[in-house]
Amino acid sequence: MRVEVGLLGESVGRLAEVGASPVGGGTRLALGGAARAGRDLVRGWMEAAGLRVRVDDFGNMVGRRDGAEEGPAVLLGSHCDSVRRGGRFDGALGVLGALEVVRALNDHGVTTRRPLEVVNWTNEEGVRFEPAMMCSGAVSGRFAKDYVYGRTDRDGRRFADELRRIGYLGREADRPAPPAAYLELHVEQGPVLEAAGLPVGVVEGIVGITWLEATVEGRADHAGPSPMRLRRDALAAAARLVSGVEELAHRLTDAVATVGRLAVEPNVINTIPGKVVMSVDLRHPSPEGLETLVAGLEKLVWEVEARTKVHIALDRFWTSEPTSFDPGTLDAVRAACEGLGLPFGRLWSGAGHDAKYLQDVCPSAMIFVRSAGGLSHCEEEYSTPEDVEAGANVLLHAAVRLAGTV
Amino acid sequence: MRVEVGLLGESVGRLAEVGASPVGGGTRLALGGAARAGRDLVRGWMEAAGLRVRVDDFGNMVGRRDGAEEGPAVLLGSHCDSVRRGGRFDGALGVLGALEVVRALNDHGVTTRRPLEVVNWTNEEGVRFEPAMMCSGAVSGRFAKDYVYGRTDRDGRRFADELRRIGYLGREADRPAPPAAYLELHVEQGPVLEAAGLPVGVVEGIVGITWLEATVEGRADHAGPSPMRLRRDALAAAARLVSGVEELAHRLTDAVATVGRLAVEPNVINTIPGKVVMSVDLRHPSPEGLETLVAGLEKLVWEVEARTKVHIALDRFWTSEPTSFDPGTLDAVRAACEGLGLPFGRLWSGAGHDAKYLQDVCPSAMIFVRSAGGLSHCEEEYSTPEDVEAGANVLLHAAVRLAGTV
Repeated sequence: MRVEVGLLGESVGRLAEVGASPVGGGTRLALGGAARAGRDLVRGWMEAAGLRVRVDDFGNMVGRRDGAEEGPAVLLGSHCDSVRRGGRFDGALGVLGALEVVRALNDHGVTTRRPLEVVNWTNEEGVRFEPAMMCSGAVSGRFAKDYVYGRTDRDGRRFADELRRIGYLGREADRPAPPAAYLELHVEQGPVLEAAGLPVGVVEGIVGITWLEATVEGRADHAGPSPMRLRRDALAAAARLVSGVEELAHRLTDAVATVGRLAVEPNVINTIPGKVVMSVDLRHPSPEGLETLVAGLEKLVWEVEARTKVHIALDRFWTSEPTSFDPGTLDAVRAACEGLGLPFGRLWSGAGHDAKYLQDVCPSAMIFVRSAGGLSHCEEEYSTPEDVEAGANVLLHAAVRLAGTV
Repeated sequence: MRVEVGLLGESVGRLAEVGASPVGGGTRLALGGAARAGRDLVRGWMEAAGLRVRVDDFGNMVGRRDGAEEGPAVLLGSHCDSVRRGGRFDGALGVLGALEVVRALNDHGVTTRRPLEVVNWTNEEGVRFEPAMMCSGAVSGRFAKDYVYGRTDRDGRRFADELRRIGYLGREADRPAPPAAYLELHVEQGPVLEAAGLPVGVVEGIVGITWLEATVEGRADHAGPSPMRLRRDALAAAARLVSGVEELAHRLTDAVATVGRLAVEPNVINTIPGKVVMSVDLRHPSPEGLETLVAGLEKLVWEVEARTKVHIALDRFWTSEPTSFDPGTLDAVRAACEGLGLPFGRLWSGAGHDAKYLQDVCPSAMIFVRSAGGLSHCEEEYSTPEDVEAGANVLLHAAVRLAGTV
């Protein structure tokens, strides 16, 4: 029993036409017009595949295929919203791959023991309404309904109003019940599988992430008449921090650390910078590793203060703890890869996914498909048909292992 | 014979009231309403001190006190325009100090051998109309009349139109004739004299300045799924450049180097920076020193490219060559300090001044007055009455030495 890439590629391509840009990517921000059109397409495909579709009070769409037994379903899915000018596979692959699994089971007349459900989570990207992974988080108990309903986009439009406007405000009773297991197929969005020459990866967990803001206060002065030894240059000090942050990650296996945002004041060619505000993004698979990075950063701040004449304030304002996926569910994914004769990598996801919150309520795991150049969140995102097919077949066979057959 | 600080402080204070802000500084942008009111005040004071005032075709105001002989005058002055919310001494001290020199000569009935002239140069700051030191540059042959007249402010108003509007468009024949010598009294705008505990400084020249822009091209990627060794982080590379630029200046005596402006793209907390554009401002008193700094920067760029995976483009877009002041004129300033029993420093100006262009056409020198905290171009700019008086007396006695008495 196999998923064929032809049909999957066709549905991915047709969904990508909704909100498409001329150069291959597209924009389907959560609850916008293109997102609604995409939902309508997916609902039609779900129904055509024989799924009974319901929509919950967060707009999460669930299509159910009965099993031989009652009880918790094996849930497969991801999201169909996108970033601005994003790629065609990010999210969509997990939803449409799950739909392809259902079609393959239908084609082969297979009845699973447990029910199967396909889910399209609302607002995974968090681009239009923050935070990300909002509605998988809501049904997993992370976010209160009032909180989610009150989130606004940059034009002040409320989540709940927009959900009603596009016709996807359903009932609380139609939320996915706590599943027997959750599987999410997704593009890697990073270069690890490509560098290792592997088509698919078994995702063992989602790294812990912590975000900090460092404010470096020096003294703005005329760049000419201020001798080097008398300066309090905030940017020169910030540069030591940036280099130090990079070193922290190089010193600890599996760590990444990034200064992505940095603003200089007054930012004038002939004025010594008086102030720099910069972000620090630290990630590690283990809670201990994450705290080691934070402690390293704090030490770095003291060292830079001691060697320069600036003051540095550090504010740790957000943390997402590391999540290890379920060993039994991971076993099913690995067994599926081995059964298909597919070489596979084992890796951690450096980015958040809906599966992170699902692991709070049920055994979960993810499957990654190799990303060309590791590129994602851009129109250049690409995975080959062969890799996409490999990933979808891992999803199929892992799902069958978890759901059982009669 | 001495200048008393009381009268000088009074005229500085009254000029500062024009365009004043509530916290001690003020704004008199070139050719604006406050600048016109300031000019009117200064013209009145010049005339009251017996000077014959003329205005040239760039709005430069010259007040003449005849000497016993005809021939080139000794010219004393600076500028009365200011930056936005600048201090009360920057520029004004040089014009009003020169006026005080005239009053002291009048009070003591001294006739100089050479004529004395007091000048108020138009648009030294270059804030409203670029470039800086525009009208001392124009009469010294640096800038063509058409070029100066056609310069526009950010609202598109032309220099020539604004000069006519405020009533200060004079005749080409009234430009200051090439002087016998030029002396400019100015606040230091830096911390050197304060750090050395000296009230005044003999300014031996104006450093050479060169401005470059470095464009660092890496690759924007998601901060999570990109392992450190596979990144092309433009900001991490730029941080090495910033640190390297600082080191370049520390390695070469009398050098300063500043990265004042730095912009990150896309400047998002969880995206590895793909591009950084940054300025580099290099300064040194000697042409060789300046080129050593540039060569050091070029080597640094190669090193950073070799150690990272970014590409760096370097564009050197502006250079102002170093200017050494005239040894004989500097001797007169030093002798004046010694005659007054004043301890003095010798230093180079890290910033441009009108005297730079005057040195092209006549022997020139400058006198610096200690700046509290080295602060300038801000409302906190301050020099003590004692230091201001010391500087004005150096100007008086150096002028007398250069002009001679009968």
